[in-house]
Amino acid sequence: MRKIFYCLTFIAACISFIPVVAQTPEDNLKKLGIQLPKSPKPVASFVHCVRVGNLLYLSGKGPARADGSFITGKVGRDLNIDSGYYAARLTAIAHLAVLKDELGDLSKVKRIVKVFGMVNCTENFYDQPKVINGYSDLMIEVFGEKGKHARSAVGMYSLPWNTAVEVETIVEVEN
Amino acid sequence: MRKIFYCLTFIAACISFIPVVAQTPEDNLKKLGIQLPKSPKPVASFVHCVRVGNLLYLSGKGPARADGSFITGKVGRDLNIDSGYYAARLTAIAHLAVLKDELGDLSKVKRIVKVFGMVNCTENFYDQPKVINGYSDLMIEVFGEKGKHARSAVGMYSLPWNTAVEVETIVEVEN
Amino acid sequence: MRKIFYCLTFIAACISFIPVVAQTPEDNLKKLGIQLPKSPKPVASFVHCVRVGNLLYLSGKGPARADGSFITGKVGRDLNIDSGYYAARLTAIAHLAVLKDELGDLSKVKRIVKVFGMVNCTENFYDQPKVINGYSDLMIEVFGEKGKHARSAVGMYSLPWNTAVEVETIVEVEN
Repeated sequence: MRKIFYCLTFIAACISFIPVVAQTPEDNLKKLGIQLPKSPKPVASFVHCVRVGNLLYLSGKGPARADGSFITGKVGRDLNIDSGYYAARLTAIAHLAVLKDELGDLSKVKRIVKVFGMVNCTENFYDQPKVINGYSDLMIEVFGEKGKHARSAVGMYSLPWNTAVEVETIVEVEN
Repeated sequence: MRKIFYCLTFIAACISFIPVVAQTPEDNLKKLGIQLPKSPKPVASFVHCVRVGNLLYLSGKGPARADGSFITGKVGRDLNIDSGYYAARLTAIAHLAVLKDELGDLSKVKRIVKVFGMVNCTENFYDQPKVINGYSDLMIEVFGEKGKHARSAVGMYSLPWNTAVEVETIVEVEN
Repeated sequence: MRKIFYCLTFIAACISFIPVVAQTPEDNLKKLGIQLPKSPKPVASFVHCVRVGNLLYLSGKGPARADGSFITGKVGRDLNIDSGYYAARLTAIAHLAVLKDELGDLSKVKRIVKVFGMVNCTENFYDQPKVINGYSDLMIEVFGEKGKHARSAVGMYSLPWNTAVEVETIVEVEN
């Protein structure tokens, strides 16, 4: 009887050391309630991304809603920081959709390397980092440590279709 | 007689499978009537391009006319979309001249990887992509599929010497 | 006697051919009287730099004074070219501090590859290159030929905390 008890204790101890099965990026997206849209067909003159060696260069993307329309306007006048943060988060979703299309499996992402975050804003708006955090935070929620990147966050005079945010990104992928 | 016929048919079939001799980028430039200028001597503090492995990082260039002067002004006020498109096309020619100087032979270009297209424009101008197409279209006319790139097109408050367009680009080259 | 003379002449000739012992980047900094600050702890959502292969991608940095405060304002209104140049030089020091933290030894820098120099300026300010030279010149003073880079210098509408300059850079490092 005591033997069985020791035995069970031992097994329990062992189990507690088994590492938690790693969540895949797709699991993380599910938990966040995010469904990736299909990336729209690339326009004639350029493509969504280009791969060189292990690097993927992603074209600049904006904050597309599920229906394909964009969040537009200037942060500091038409949008506040929270709305800008949300726009940056949508921009990250647009890039995740491109990555999913390209890689099939988001687990092939080895590192989000560099993010250039552009905020369509007023001349006196100085909180671009708080806005682009919407992009960065989602990348870290989805990829964990692999989502941590080098970054610039800057204020733009004007962006295509008056989108509130545009981001371009470099991603390292597995062989 | 029939044998000869079969034989000729066979030869004709073979010939139809011989791939068309590929046009070189230089051929394409000639057909487009574009003569590349000599790149001006690099200014002291930086260089026209830096190579790392198979990647060439090209410095930002503007729309230089054949006489070396620049197309200046803001798109949306001083220039319309068509003039902006033309300025972007001149900017592509400036980059092609840098590539020619560096590589000798434009056939060594393996891929135009990433283009960052900056348009000097008004606050309410939202058609940066249509302007930067002038750059992208020429790259595709010259390099075909290899010319298709990842891209961002954005609106700038001010550019050096008030040039209408500035573009910086990453190019993959053959070993 | 004559033999000794010839011998000494020969030795002197040899010595004159011994290459001058190369100055390290750290020596150059010392000669310039520049002491690198400690890089502040990275903020949550991003990191100071990411390495992929032999490339280091440095996050955008601004002109931090020794006490951590920033030089702020618009070049062309609040700052003149000289003050802007000095701000760009401080920005280079901020990047050198990141490189020192990351590499331990600045001699591991193989090449400053690409610099994207952003100047917070007025709409009619066109001398961004003269401002960003403050960054480029210091890199060349510290690294010599290895400090020469591809570059763009552009005018921004607004930068985080109203800093006068922001620069992001790619650096090639030794294996």
